[in-house]
Amino acid sequence: MFEAVKDTTRRPGSNRYLRRLLVLCNRLLSERGEANSVSIARDLVAGFRALPDDARGAFFGHLASDFSPDPAALLASAQAYAQSPGAAQLQQVLRDAEPPRQELLRRINRLPGGTADIVAMRRALLGRLGAQPELAAVEADFLHLLGSWFNPGFLQLQRVDWRSPAHLLEQLIQHEAVHTIDGWDDLRRRLQPDRRCFAFFHPQLPDEPLIFVEVALLPDMPAAIAPLIDKTATQPPERSLRTATFYSISNCQPGLRGVSLGNFLIKRVADELKRELPQLRTFCTLSPLPGLARWLRAGAPCESLSRVRAQRLAEAQQTLLAACDGKLERLSDKASLQRLPADAAQALQRLAAIYLTQVSPTTLGDPVARFHLDNGARLERLNPLGDLSEKGLRQSFGLMVNYLYDLKKVELHHENFVLGEVAHSRQLASLL
Amino acid sequence: MFEAVKDTTRRPGSNRYLRRLLVLCNRLLSERGEANSVSIARDLVAGFRALPDDARGAFFGHLASDFSPDPAALLASAQAYAQSPGAAQLQQVLRDAEPPRQELLRRINRLPGGTADIVAMRRALLGRLGAQPELAAVEADFLHLLGSWFNPGFLQLQRVDWRSPAHLLEQLIQHEAVHTIDGWDDLRRRLQPDRRCFAFFHPQLPDEPLIFVEVALLPDMPAAIAPLIDKTATQPPERSLRTATFYSISNCQPGLRGVSLGNFLIKRVADELKRELPQLRTFCTLSPLPGLARWLRAGAPCESLSRVRAQRLAEAQQTLLAACDGKLERLSDKASLQRLPADAAQALQRLAAIYLTQVSPTTLGDPVARFHLDNGARLERLNPLGDLSEKGLRQSFGLMVNYLYDLKKVELHHENFVLGEVAHSRQLASLL
Amino acid sequence: MFEAVKDTTRRPGSNRYLRRLLVLCNRLLSERGEANSVSIARDLVAGFRALPDDARGAFFGHLASDFSPDPAALLASAQAYAQSPGAAQLQQVLRDAEPPRQELLRRINRLPGGTADIVAMRRALLGRLGAQPELAAVEADFLHLLGSWFNPGFLQLQRVDWRSPAHLLEQLIQHEAVHTIDGWDDLRRRLQPDRRCFAFFHPQLPDEPLIFVEVALLPDMPAAIAPLIDKTATQPPERSLRTATFYSISNCQPGLRGVSLGNFLIKRVADELKRELPQLRTFCTLSPLPGLARWLRAGAPCESLSRVRAQRLAEAQQTLLAACDGKLERLSDKASLQRLPADAAQALQRLAAIYLTQVSPTTLGDPVARFHLDNGARLERLNPLGDLSEKGLRQSFGLMVNYLYDLKKVELHHENFVLGEVAHSRQLASLL
Amino acid sequence: MFEAVKDTTRRPGSNRYLRRLLVLCNRLLSERGEANSVSIARDLVAGFRALPDDARGAFFGHLASDFSPDPAALLASAQAYAQSPGAAQLQQVLRDAEPPRQELLRRINRLPGGTADIVAMRRALLGRLGAQPELAAVEADFLHLLGSWFNPGFLQLQRVDWRSPAHLLEQLIQHEAVHTIDGWDDLRRRLQPDRRCFAFFHPQLPDEPLIFVEVALLPDMPAAIAPLIDKTATQPPERSLRTATFYSISNCQPGLRGVSLGNFLIKRVADELKRELPQLRTFCTLSPLPGLARWLRAGAPCESLSRVRAQRLAEAQQTLLAACDGKLERLSDKASLQRLPADAAQALQRLAAIYLTQVSPTTLGDPVARFHLDNGARLERLNPLGDLSEKGLRQSFGLMVNYLYDLKKVELHHENFVLGEVAHSRQLASLL
Repeated sequence: MFEAVKDTTRRPGSNRYLRRLLVLCNRLLSERGEANSVSIARDLVAGFRALPDDARGAFFGHLASDFSPDPAALLASAQAYAQSPGAAQLQQVLRDAEPPRQELLRRINRLPGGTADIVAMRRALLGRLGAQPELAAVEADFLHLLGSWFNPGFLQLQRVDWRSPAHLLEQLIQHEAVHTIDGWDDLRRRLQPDRRCFAFFHPQLPDEPLIFVEVALLPDMPAAIAPLIDKTATQPPERSLRTATFYSISNCQPGLRGVSLGNFLIKRVADELKRELPQLRTFCTLSPLPGLARWLRAGAPCESLSRVRAQRLAEAQQTLLAACDGKLERLSDKASLQRLPADAAQALQRLAAIYLTQVSPTTLGDPVARFHLDNGARLERLNPLGDLSEKGLRQSFGLMVNYLYDLKKVELHHENFVLGEVAHSRQLASLL
Repeated sequence: MFEAVKDTTRRPGSNRYLRRLLVLCNRLLSERGEANSVSIARDLVAGFRALPDDARGAFFGHLASDFSPDPAALLASAQAYAQSPGAAQLQQVLRDAEPPRQELLRRINRLPGGTADIVAMRRALLGRLGAQPELAAVEADFLHLLGSWFNPGFLQLQRVDWRSPAHLLEQLIQHEAVHTIDGWDDLRRRLQPDRRCFAFFHPQLPDEPLIFVEVALLPDMPAAIAPLIDKTATQPPERSLRTATFYSISNCQPGLRGVSLGNFLIKRVADELKRELPQLRTFCTLSPLPGLARWLRAGAPCESLSRVRAQRLAEAQQTLLAACDGKLERLSDKASLQRLPADAAQALQRLAAIYLTQVSPTTLGDPVARFHLDNGARLERLNPLGDLSEKGLRQSFGLMVNYLYDLKKVELHHENFVLGEVAHSRQLASLL
Repeated sequence: MFEAVKDTTRRPGSNRYLRRLLVLCNRLLSERGEANSVSIARDLVAGFRALPDDARGAFFGHLASDFSPDPAALLASAQAYAQSPGAAQLQQVLRDAEPPRQELLRRINRLPGGTADIVAMRRALLGRLGAQPELAAVEADFLHLLGSWFNPGFLQLQRVDWRSPAHLLEQLIQHEAVHTIDGWDDLRRRLQPDRRCFAFFHPQLPDEPLIFVEVALLPDMPAAIAPLIDKTATQPPERSLRTATFYSISNCQPGLRGVSLGNFLIKRVADELKRELPQLRTFCTLSPLPGLARWLRAGAPCESLSRVRAQRLAEAQQTLLAACDGKLERLSDKASLQRLPADAAQALQRLAAIYLTQVSPTTLGDPVARFHLDNGARLERLNPLGDLSEKGLRQSFGLMVNYLYDLKKVELHHENFVLGEVAHSRQLASLL
Repeated sequence: MFEAVKDTTRRPGSNRYLRRLLVLCNRLLSERGEANSVSIARDLVAGFRALPDDARGAFFGHLASDFSPDPAALLASAQAYAQSPGAAQLQQVLRDAEPPRQELLRRINRLPGGTADIVAMRRALLGRLGAQPELAAVEADFLHLLGSWFNPGFLQLQRVDWRSPAHLLEQLIQHEAVHTIDGWDDLRRRLQPDRRCFAFFHPQLPDEPLIFVEVALLPDMPAAIAPLIDKTATQPPERSLRTATFYSISNCQPGLRGVSLGNFLIKRVADELKRELPQLRTFCTLSPLPGLARWLRAGAPCESLSRVRAQRLAEAQQTLLAACDGKLERLSDKASLQRLPADAAQALQRLAAIYLTQVSPTTLGDPVARFHLDNGARLERLNPLGDLSEKGLRQSFGLMVNYLYDLKKVELHHENFVLGEVAHSRQLASLL
């Protein structure tokens, strides 16, 4: 038992303590049968939890160096497989290629609560990645396994409302990333009958929402965020609700970064809403452009652009800079922004349109735009002065976007997006 | 949509139909993003279901030949990794080593109900393995992924009793493999207050038990099966119940063969029972020896035996054969067996003791013995005339075994068993 | 504690034992506060359960004689109320009028499980009523309170299907009163997707269905019962199901006789079905006429009949009797019935039509007809040879009836029925 | 339908409107069968809800005058019963004695949600009682029926914690009557692991708690309220928790005033806690004395007191008054109270002891004391300066009481209390 281990190695983080942890890793793996994995895994997890941050770095370093495949053995079996690519050779090469730490994680995952432990370990690992780039392969193994375990077929969609347990609602308040929830009264407004909130859960983390989405049911596609999160807003009559607007999507588990959850969530929520409210005609978002100002400040780089468009881009940049005396940060001032001349306001929209349609398919693109476009949405409308909060002014000079989810076309749009083409409305086309 | 496909390829099973299925496999994999995997996967699964048996063989054949790693690419990256074993090289070699069909299965698994589809596919695959040994690597991929998805941390233990849904109880009647359940009345007896039944479920297969175990609560360790499954037996008073006897473990999912479920089940059930009934002192089994007669007929082969024991084995064989005129099948006759002279009865027990203690650690061993011993149980008692059913007489000349689960020692016993040593009681020792 | 009581009065049923029980009754009532009612009530209920049958009669006799209102006190307060009918006088007269045994039952009802105890006591009481008519007032008090506690607002409708707990399904097999369920396989047929079964539950008796109704979903209104309960019948495609036919209603609690449950059940089930299957157009029954043969044997008495109808009745009787040589029992023979001449068959239908339309509103009427007609149903169709089971032949010479529930007209029909008028279809009118 | 009614009688509250409501009352009652009661009752309830307050008074007035028993008929049947007290006569007198409005309420109660409607009607009725004392008999009928429907056997105990639905927790914040809950953070403290909260529910009002009780688990019997409701208090280790202290009981349904719920709640909660935490030794309260100051200001009236005690009472009064210059209100000032000389402090305690032990059994007694003592609790300890909130200072000069629930003696104590005797500890005895 690890209790004993702890006695002899006074300090978690000492070399001796770390060595014991690695002994546990080896024991957990070396067991031929599987009968005792639970108790060893329990000690291992407890031991890891007690590690101070830098010792965790050392621990992960050992996972990278000591629990990787043996290059020589792998090479030998790859050669055998290349010579004679039969089933036996393939099974051997797979055995030799798989980093032993993958099996280590699988055995930890057998613990009651083991999945949560692994998510927590990965969170720590992600935090070390900047300082220790050599951990990339370890991190890849974590992501690989978590992606398999958190696959959408295993996730459960759950409606969240004022009848949900308080401890769950509390997590919503805490994790809302897009438009901060200001306490219980604010939350209550967001759970009124003209709002919906859904969360994804995994059976192994029954009390921990993975991701949640907030939806406003409205007569029309909204152009600004303020009325949607106004605590005192009155509710329109139910029969007038034709539009479901996804206005906030928040991840709750930093340890699951990179595991795609959101795209499935939106489609399942749309299906769910349609079943409940057949009168819904439109599914759209009201989304921020978190990267716009940054991109403009960087000089609006754009990889490949037709000559005509490149010229329009240059003109619009000029017009906008002229209107703010070359100081883009002025556009983050509400009053200045509201006084912006019409041509400059137009120029700003045109720049945003180019940014969204031309840059999104590249890695320079806006993360929110990439998320929805890759997900099969269509770029529908730009909304100037849509978000006058400090954050909205700073990130995108107040601009917001509606992405439209036409459920019959999401597959088509997605395939086109992968090929570099962004589906967009006539309004957007006219701006280009 | 596959609807269209079906129109043009009149016959499921035709070459054209099969080719379309493989196109779907490629489409499902080639999608860079993941947005459309669900609809493609749905068509693929529907298409597979419609395949006749021999066409399934062909389909799996293509999974083996077309969705294996590329030997040349793998060899190249293995060489790069051998030369410079960094994170980037490792990630590349892993990408090149993983058979693409693994990702194919992961994407099918995203479907609602996809896990059940994969279990059903594997069932079909296992049925083809005899005729097509080249499918071994495909089967290994199925087993690898199912082992990860059905890991014990994801499984839910559920008590089954007379309050359980009828559709679940019906499956128990159907799947009971050890001692047939003879209709609803018989089942009812097995769910009386002095009995327990538990099943493991997976969240993705909520209506399908994976495996279940039947337990009899008794004053003492039982020596025969008949009284345990007697429909009319009276129940002892609750306070006298000191022994929990596992008398039947049955798998319900042929498609999960080889995914270890039973060992975790026994320990979790024991924990559960202890919580409910703290007066329980003993956890044991009453188990068959399905391989004994077969082993004796094969001449009682035994890999390594001390000289003394080898001699005893030979003597016991002689005594037993003498008692049945060299015709072992006579011992499968109830009347003959009951008339067996004391020395021959003793010889039979000695042979069984050698079989269980010396042969179990090897692949020649009895499968039930291997299961419990590897699981950490101790060989406790031989019970002559313990199972006088036709099956019991045929398989083991009526002998039954009690394995004892001493929860404090299961880890130790398991580790010793892996080293080839079988934990056993004094009764067994005296027979050796 | 009653334990003590039992010690000193060896024999439950002895005078002494009975006297102790009555002491407990008085103690339960005399408590001014309510703090101890539970433990006293528990002893009282245990004491009652142990009573042999005849001693129960004596116990109920004491409830009648000793726990009735005091006539003198009641007369005095009734006089005071008559003189000056104020609130205070009224409250006094109510206190004096209420039989103390009502409060006794209310205090027993506080017990966990107390409601079930009272239902069981009433069952025993109903069994004594024939021999002890003086218990009528006691029985009225039981019925009064149970009617209040089992009021439809407190009842919960629950769908019963193959997913329901086995212990519940077992009760259905046991209690089905109209068309016997022949074991689990038969039950399974009745729970197929084209069948529905619903039960009412009371929160205090969570495991005991009060009443259940079986429904067949069919393309058309059925004319015979045999195809409906045929275990091997195939199921019509779901889209063709336009008619919901209630073909069996069974009470499960003899102790609730006279508490009306069935009428509410039918309407709530119809509402429930309409929600689930909007394509349903017709709600009807396929019902027996349990009283027809008896009525005919009694000479077809009918209180008030127009001259014309009385003559038709007489003629029809004559025709029918002629066809069976004056031996009505011959019509209970399947072969004879099937050979009946057309005029006699017509006469039988006419007699049934008169019986149902003219006699139903009176106490001579058929109980099933009274139930549905009072419930607002319309008499829709007679079905000769609809039930050729031994019971159907004996009770109604094979005739069955469809009652139609037109949900928009049930109130109107009910009100008319109370005034003596039976709603009926043209087919029925043509027979009159 | 009442819709039609509303059209013709423009104003709810007009005489015509009221007359229509009474017509509905009569229709609901006059229906011989019961088939239509639901739709009529629904109209009646909707009509009542629309009534302005004074018109409600008029409506209840009609319930009093028009739906009371007929004095003449009742007198006649009472005479018949007095002459010949048989079952038939008794049933007749019961029919004549029961106010028809009772059956009216029973039929309203058949509505889905009808029970909640009746509770709401009673709430309105209670509000009119002061102005219209003639409604006392109507109110008695409501109480009678609600007492029967909300009997403890029908109530469900439910634990309330941080996993409970937010809408339920919100009601706790709103209804807490003893020690106000100051928002969600405060509530959270009261639902920490060393606290318990339980509520009673009725199956017909599934979302509405009827009453709830808050419990602190502590090492010892507490002497002051402040540490118990301190949001920042640390939690003692679980194994040290030996005492369960009921520190707040709050009714949530004004319409159920007078229906006894609390006494059953305390005992069931105590049982529940004992099951969960067998180490609990003591069940007690920390309770206010809401009537003490009022009683002292009224001159400390006491119906019957031995000569010795009367003298002590007089002396204590004198001492106390002397200490505050005859101005009792000074004792409601925290600073003055904390400086009170020891003899005056002692006198205050003695007065409280006399108040609690001698006055409680009479109608002059403290309501909280009467509740717990009648419930079988023992008066255990007086706690000076136990509640220094503004309310505590004003009502009882800071004094608080512990009542002890010795579950083995509650019946005995209750019976003695009914006879006028208050169970108390030695500490209390020494003060007398």
